[in-house]
Parts: sequence; structure tokens; C-alpha cells
Amino acid sequence: MPILNKDMTLCISLSARPSNNGTRFHNYLYDQLGLNWIYKAFAPTDLAQAIAGVRGLGIRGCAVSMPYKEDVIALVDAMDPSAKAIDSVNTIVNDGGRLTAYNTDYTAIEQLLERNAVPSGSSVLLQGAGGMAKATAAALRDAGFRNVTIVARNEASGRSLADLYGFEWRAELGDATADMIINVTPMGMAGGAEADSLSFPLAAVDAAKVVFDVVALPPETPLIKAGRAAGKQVITGAEVATIQALEQFVLYTGIRPTDQQVRDAEAFVRAQ
Amino acid sequence: MPILNKDMTLCISLSARPSNNGTRFHNYLYDQLGLNWIYKAFAPTDLAQAIAGVRGLGIRGCAVSMPYKEDVIALVDAMDPSAKAIDSVNTIVNDGGRLTAYNTDYTAIEQLLERNAVPSGSSVLLQGAGGMAKATAAALRDAGFRNVTIVARNEASGRSLADLYGFEWRAELGDATADMIINVTPMGMAGGAEADSLSFPLAAVDAAKVVFDVVALPPETPLIKAGRAAGKQVITGAEVATIQALEQFVLYTGIRPTDQQVRDAEAFVRAQ
Repeated sequence: MPILNKDMTLCISLSARPSNNGTRFHNYLYDQLGLNWIYKAFAPTDLAQAIAGVRGLGIRGCAVSMPYKEDVIALVDAMDPSAKAIDSVNTIVNDGGRLTAYNTDYTAIEQLLERNAVPSGSSVLLQGAGGMAKATAAALRDAGFRNVTIVARNEASGRSLADLYGFEWRAELGDATADMIINVTPMGMAGGAEADSLSFPLAAVDAAKVVFDVVALPPETPLIKAGRAAGKQVITGAEVATIQALEQFVLYTGIRPTDQQVRDAEAFVRAQ
Repeated sequence: MPILNKDMTLCISLSARPSNNGTRFHNYLYDQLGLNWIYKAFAPTDLAQAIAGVRGLGIRGCAVSMPYKEDVIALVDAMDPSAKAIDSVNTIVNDGGRLTAYNTDYTAIEQLLERNAVPSGSSVLLQGAGGMAKATAAALRDAGFRNVTIVARNEASGRSLADLYGFEWRAELGDATADMIINVTPMGMAGGAEADSLSFPLAAVDAAKVVFDVVALPPETPLIKAGRAAGKQVITGAEVATIQALEQFVLYTGIRPTDQQVRDAEAFVRAQ
């Protein structure tokens, strides 16, 4: 039985179709760390009123998901560089009524490029042109990558994303190869229409040194499986999801859990 | 460990200085009844923004305490007669963004007069002139009581309350007696300056048939103790508090717990 009490600090998420992942990840860590905090996902009926509620109720932190990541910019007081770099917000921190927006997707990709020691001189094929592709492109640019090609069938969004960061654009993969291939499309996503699709041809996987799939569910997408089978260095969307949630946790609480606590929280999320 | 999930329905309270009672009462009953709901008290930083949050986040129910009971009237869509009768709100129900205000203090007093079968022809001495005295006076008037005297040292508030309901006013108790004596002042309240004060003279207790103290904490105030000692019919503030919370629960969930469940919830509140 949840013995809630009046003094608990509340963090929330705002999403049109919330998953249970954030609620489980954060509450698990609150419990492990003995914090008198609770976390709950919301599907807001009105974004501006929901953000007013964040201020008025003193809600400490607020994750922001589709389709609110851009609309929420007008409702906050300050933009951290991580959000400003891509004009997209996935995290709000409330300091006594002052709301600062962050983007921990950007932070997560930045961290993973560094942790995996991917040389910035590598050539990159980045497939996708949505919000997450923008976060990925910005993190690549800010990490010094210059030889990046955006692959997107939609010319308007693909070309404008490429232009924004000084990258190339092409409509089709064709037989292109690169040192690092990155999928930021829904291909391989559980429950999607293309759940079984391999997002890059096997030849591109074979030619790559690093295979990066931003799709988080399933953790082992067809692309990640192919990358592992070919003995490549792989970076998974599950890692992106965990790091972005962890960085939200750190921003809200000021506490960095241990690696073991984070692994346990991930396992708890998966056990649902 | 509280295994919260994204689908939980949230109810809250808004109060400048929240107690833990509502949080414990409601969460206990949610658990007993197997409802996927949670309840948490808030001290809002801004009332209008907090109410915007009730709408924007789809918060189902909202208890309203001091000092927001009147200010909140301008922020709701409709007033139930229980709130309209006294221009004071202690409960808001959110039906898909439409907020209806209630006053379950009024409802609780109305129920207790009926349950205790106090004849409406009884003479009444009502001591106090604040918001709760207004709820009590309105419930008396609406139950058909006509022979009621408001006792309040402050002439402005005492006389206006009396005038509002067609009752008498007097500044001092003196040696007045009545069939029912009701205390709605802080006298006898735990932690207050007059915690040990008997709010009516013993002669008034002896002359009464019914002794009613609206002070909820402690459950056995000096007045209730004196009433019991003199063998009188007593009505306690603890009963008012439980019934008003129970009626909130029913308004939010549409479910009426059994008497035993309510007694268990009361015991859980007291066990903190």
C-alpha cells in the first residue's frame, strides 16, 4: 500500500500518450534513495493550463513528450543550451516558480558519442528528420562531426535539417556507407508498422564501424541485432532512453544514482 | 514501496498549511477499495494557477481549505447548492474540465443534525462567526431551525451572520441556555491558545439536551467531555471532519465506502 504523505515532492510527465516507463524509473529510484518524492505521468487536456499547474502546485520537475516539445517553449522562463540548440524541450525544472527548459535527449546522445569514443572525423549516415533526429544532428555537430549526411525522403524537412547544421542531405540511402550509421526513424520500433524492418541495408552495416539505433523499444532492434552479429560497436536507443531519464532525475533531485542503481531501475522498468 | 503507475487518477488538496489527514484518509480508502487513485496535499504558490493545473492535468478532485475557500469561487464553473448557500467552497469536482464546487462541511452538519434527530423546534446557541459558523448556521436554517442565537464578540461579523439567516445575535453568552449548544470557535482546539478552555459554562451544558462541538482536534474537547460527563447527547467535530472527507470521497469516486471502512480510515488517520 502506498503510504503517501502531504510533504512529498511531485514530478510529472506531459505526453499525449504516456508510457509507464518514466513513472516506474523515477519512483523506483526515489524509493531506493529514500527520497520523499513521487512521479506520475499525465496526458494533459491543455498544455498552458498544465504548465500553470506546474507553477501553481509547485511541481518540481516535468518531462515533456510528443506532441508538446516545441509548444512548451513559449511557456517557460529560460532555455538551457541543450534545449536551445534544437528548439525542443523534454525537461522542465521548477525553481521556486521559475521554469528552466532542458533537452536531455540531446545530452544523452552527446554523452554516448563521448563514452563510445566515436572519432569526430568519422563519416556519418543519419536516417530521419524528426525532433529526435534534430537532437542527434545537433549533438553530432556540437561534438565536432562535420562529415554527416541526413537521409530523409521528405526533402523539405531533410534538407532544412541538413542546412541547419551544415550537413549534406540525400533522399535515399542507395548504396551509401559510412563509419557510423544512425537510425532515427520508426523502423524497428516495437508495435509500429515497420517493427521488423532493418533500417539500413546489411552492406551499410558491414561497412560501418559503429551502429547506432535511437529506437528504444525493443532494446534489441533488427539494426542492433545485425550490428552485433557483424561484430560492430553498437549504441542502443535503450541507452539513450536510460541516460535521458537519468539526467532528468539528476536535474530534479540534484542526486546522481550509482550505475548499479540505474541498472536496477532499468530492470524495474522492463519488468512491467 | 509505492508502485505508482501512469494511469492513476489524482485528487489533491489546496491549503496554506496542509495537514496529513486528507492524504491518509483518501489513500487508505483507495487502497482498501482497490482504486488506482492517489491523493496528495499541496500548499499552492498561486491559487489561479493551481486551479488551472486541476483542469490542465485532469486532476479529478480538489479539496480547498484556508485561506482559499472564498477566492476559489471565481475560478470554478458551477456552484452546488451546498457551496452557494454559504458562498464558501471546500470541494471541487472536475468533470472533463468543468469544475463544480461543493461544501461538504455544510453537508456534514446537515447529516449530523438529521442522524441525531435534533428537533428543528429546539432552541440553539451557536458560538462563533467564521466560515465554519456560517456553514453551521446555514445547515440549521435549511433544516428548519428558527430559534437560533449567534454568539460572537465581534458585532459586525456576528450580527451580519445572524441577519443573513434570520437569527438573533448577542455579544456574550452570559447565563444564556438552549436545547442545543454549538461551539464553532477555536476554544478547545489542540495546539491553540485556548486548548484547555471549556467553550460554554457548565450551567449551559447542564441545561442543554444536545452538546455539539465543531472543533475536530482533539476528538474529545473539554466541551465534549463535559457533555458526556453530564450525560448529554453529543455531536463531535471529529464526526464532522470524517463525514466531510467521506462526502468528498463519494463526490470524487462515486463510491460510498462501508461504515467499517470509514472507521478503519479514521483509525489510520489517527495512527500517524
